[in-house]
Amino acid sequence: MTTLDRYRARIAHGDSLERVTFFSDAVFAIAMTLLVIELHLPEVPEAGFDAALAALLPEYLTFVLSFAVVGMIWLSHHRKFTAIVRYDQPLLRLNLLMLLFVASLPLPTAILGAHGDQVGAVVVYALTVAATGFSLTGIWLYAWHRGLIAAEVDEAVFRLVLVQSFPIPGFFLLSIPVAVLAGPTAAQLSWLLAIPAAALIPRVYRARAEVSTA
Amino acid sequence: MTTLDRYRARIAHGDSLERVTFFSDAVFAIAMTLLVIELHLPEVPEAGFDAALAALLPEYLTFVLSFAVVGMIWLSHHRKFTAIVRYDQPLLRLNLLMLLFVASLPLPTAILGAHGDQVGAVVVYALTVAATGFSLTGIWLYAWHRGLIAAEVDEAVFRLVLVQSFPIPGFFLLSIPVAVLAGPTAAQLSWLLAIPAAALIPRVYRARAEVSTA
Amino acid sequence: MTTLDRYRARIAHGDSLERVTFFSDAVFAIAMTLLVIELHLPEVPEAGFDAALAALLPEYLTFVLSFAVVGMIWLSHHRKFTAIVRYDQPLLRLNLLMLLFVASLPLPTAILGAHGDQVGAVVVYALTVAATGFSLTGIWLYAWHRGLIAAEVDEAVFRLVLVQSFPIPGFFLLSIPVAVLAGPTAAQLSWLLAIPAAALIPRVYRARAEVSTA
Amino acid sequence: MTTLDRYRARIAHGDSLERVTFFSDAVFAIAMTLLVIELHLPEVPEAGFDAALAALLPEYLTFVLSFAVVGMIWLSHHRKFTAIVRYDQPLLRLNLLMLLFVASLPLPTAILGAHGDQVGAVVVYALTVAATGFSLTGIWLYAWHRGLIAAEVDEAVFRLVLVQSFPIPGFFLLSIPVAVLAGPTAAQLSWLLAIPAAALIPRVYRARAEVSTA
Repeated sequence: MTTLDRYRARIAHGDSLERVTFFSDAVFAIAMTLLVIELHLPEVPEAGFDAALAALLPEYLTFVLSFAVVGMIWLSHHRKFTAIVRYDQPLLRLNLLMLLFVASLPLPTAILGAHGDQVGAVVVYALTVAATGFSLTGIWLYAWHRGLIAAEVDEAVFRLVLVQSFPIPGFFLLSIPVAVLAGPTAAQLSWLLAIPAAALIPRVYRARAEVSTA
Repeated sequence: MTTLDRYRARIAHGDSLERVTFFSDAVFAIAMTLLVIELHLPEVPEAGFDAALAALLPEYLTFVLSFAVVGMIWLSHHRKFTAIVRYDQPLLRLNLLMLLFVASLPLPTAILGAHGDQVGAVVVYALTVAATGFSLTGIWLYAWHRGLIAAEVDEAVFRLVLVQSFPIPGFFLLSIPVAVLAGPTAAQLSWLLAIPAAALIPRVYRARAEVSTA
Repeated sequence: MTTLDRYRARIAHGDSLERVTFFSDAVFAIAMTLLVIELHLPEVPEAGFDAALAALLPEYLTFVLSFAVVGMIWLSHHRKFTAIVRYDQPLLRLNLLMLLFVASLPLPTAILGAHGDQVGAVVVYALTVAATGFSLTGIWLYAWHRGLIAAEVDEAVFRLVLVQSFPIPGFFLLSIPVAVLAGPTAAQLSWLLAIPAAALIPRVYRARAEVSTA
Repeated sequence: MTTLDRYRARIAHGDSLERVTFFSDAVFAIAMTLLVIELHLPEVPEAGFDAALAALLPEYLTFVLSFAVVGMIWLSHHRKFTAIVRYDQPLLRLNLLMLLFVASLPLPTAILGAHGDQVGAVVVYALTVAATGFSLTGIWLYAWHRGLIAAEVDEAVFRLVLVQSFPIPGFFLLSIPVAVLAGPTAAQLSWLLAIPAAALIPRVYRARAEVSTA
């Protein structure tokens, strides 16, 4: 092993994931907090103050939706990086790709808040959330195949976590044909199903897994 | 105990709260710093530069108020998470709920800064502060009932911290009927009482607790 | 010692300053990075693109000035909190006061960038920088008098650090009468002296201190 | 060694780089996330919603480019600060200089997104990226000459890391004469070469280094 190889072993790979999770947390926190600054009350509300306040409500609910979605993806990132204990350069690049989608989210959120009746706004928003979720799934698959996960995580656990990461991006992806066929409101209503599904699907899977093991 | 159970014990619960407090601190810091960017001097001040600067003062004081309120809630979060030493998934979700209100605050702050004479602006602001404070109270209650708090914190201490977390959101909640009945200015003046009350009420409570123990 | 007293000793005071320095760093980093987003090129530059770019230069230099000033105050905070090893609640509140001034700085920076020829803009900017610097001095004085500083820091070292924290806020404070008497340009030029003075004054003081000890 | 000298040894130099890397990470994360908030859809799109969405695409690609560039510079900073194990005050100041360019980037990104057909926009963007990259190179050179790097990093490794830090800023610097002579589009296309070059040049260098050692 040459000096350069030892350097690569020291620098390019590593088991100190602190700076990576820290940097990711900062991007998550900033994106979630920036979501709100797109919301403004007109300085001279023409229709009276209370009407302007009420008109802001749909935009505020879009902010709450985005905050909840990014929050759930952060919880999922947090759980996965408790199990991932080593990194290499492609993992860091995959993580940056996921953070690119996280950092993008304020834009589709603002567009959806102002143009929630447009199919295009719903599609762009759903695509961004699906891309964020699936890139996190990609991180988990890559980490498993490259042996970057703690030894006590066996294949059953790997599969459970994998299944857990499908409902949210899956529902948002499926809402795209819903938006095209049944309109933007139907698509937005379908998103509300993503949250109970995110809780339910892994339980069903786990129950089946336990039956098949027994 | 199956592998999946051990995984749950490792991933879903945990005693490493660093990433959680770090992420919370980042949201607090960003929300507090974003508050100021809503403030702008008109590019061509019609009434002269110094008059425009003076006209900015009430908005700046609203920024100081929000910074002080979020700062005190951060101090309270900091104290509580010195005692909370374990987490589970519902605690993380409650913490995200509290952070949703923290991240929302720049919006009611901007509305209050521009429309401080409107009852609606005062009500929305007071509701957001009260929701932030009471969700932190909820975290403390949940952590106590689920045994997530360090063993050396006994019931007397739990109750003192509980009492400490009421004055700020309580005063803001009580200011809502004040705003409706006595006008927005009276409500805003009542907020100034929240800060000495936050210092005084726990002392009175503590003195009484010591008398009853003696 | 009652349970409540032990609790106070555990919660209200402490020697784990990590969360405090972390939170402070986040506010510093956000304020420094937000400074730039006030700068905009007009979407349809009337006087041609290159002229619009050139017209942005004075505003960019104001951003560089603020970045440098906050950066030096961050370095000073970093040095002081290497020596401060314990905290109590008033120290945390003093730190929040300093962070209030740090978080305020994007506003006077934007005003100075757009209205650098106004005495009022120079005064507001200089006051904010002076308040930031002197509140950091206040933290250092408070920490010394309450014994929150590491034992190996003796009085000579305490005094050197104290002297080091005067030039920057001092020069900005002194620039206020300069702005009033000799105009805003003279005041801004006087700020350029703050940086060499920040390097020179502690050396002169240290040389004198060494002579008087010998 | 006097007390003041011991103080300097304790405060001004140090081997605890955590706060420095943390602060740097925060600036990187904020700058990368702020890039997107310059993008806006017009509130009342004149040309129809889908046309307005399509018109936003070039600006979004500029955001992706800046996110990728800052992301690669962050990866490079991360690798270098795994090897740098001590700091002194000039290193901290060099790091602040690099962060100044990182924090500046949202401005040239917004200018490039809105005026990608202007030579001046391309030049300002390329200069900012080159300045960021070369100041990171400067940090590495300074750290090597002052012995701030871990002992196991020998000269061959130092040179490899040095070579790795040239392609990105180099390509952006070289794109400036390309922009002047062949127009802004040619310069922007040349940037796409920076990414494969960043991967390829160190490999060629390493292969040659191994041949000459053998």
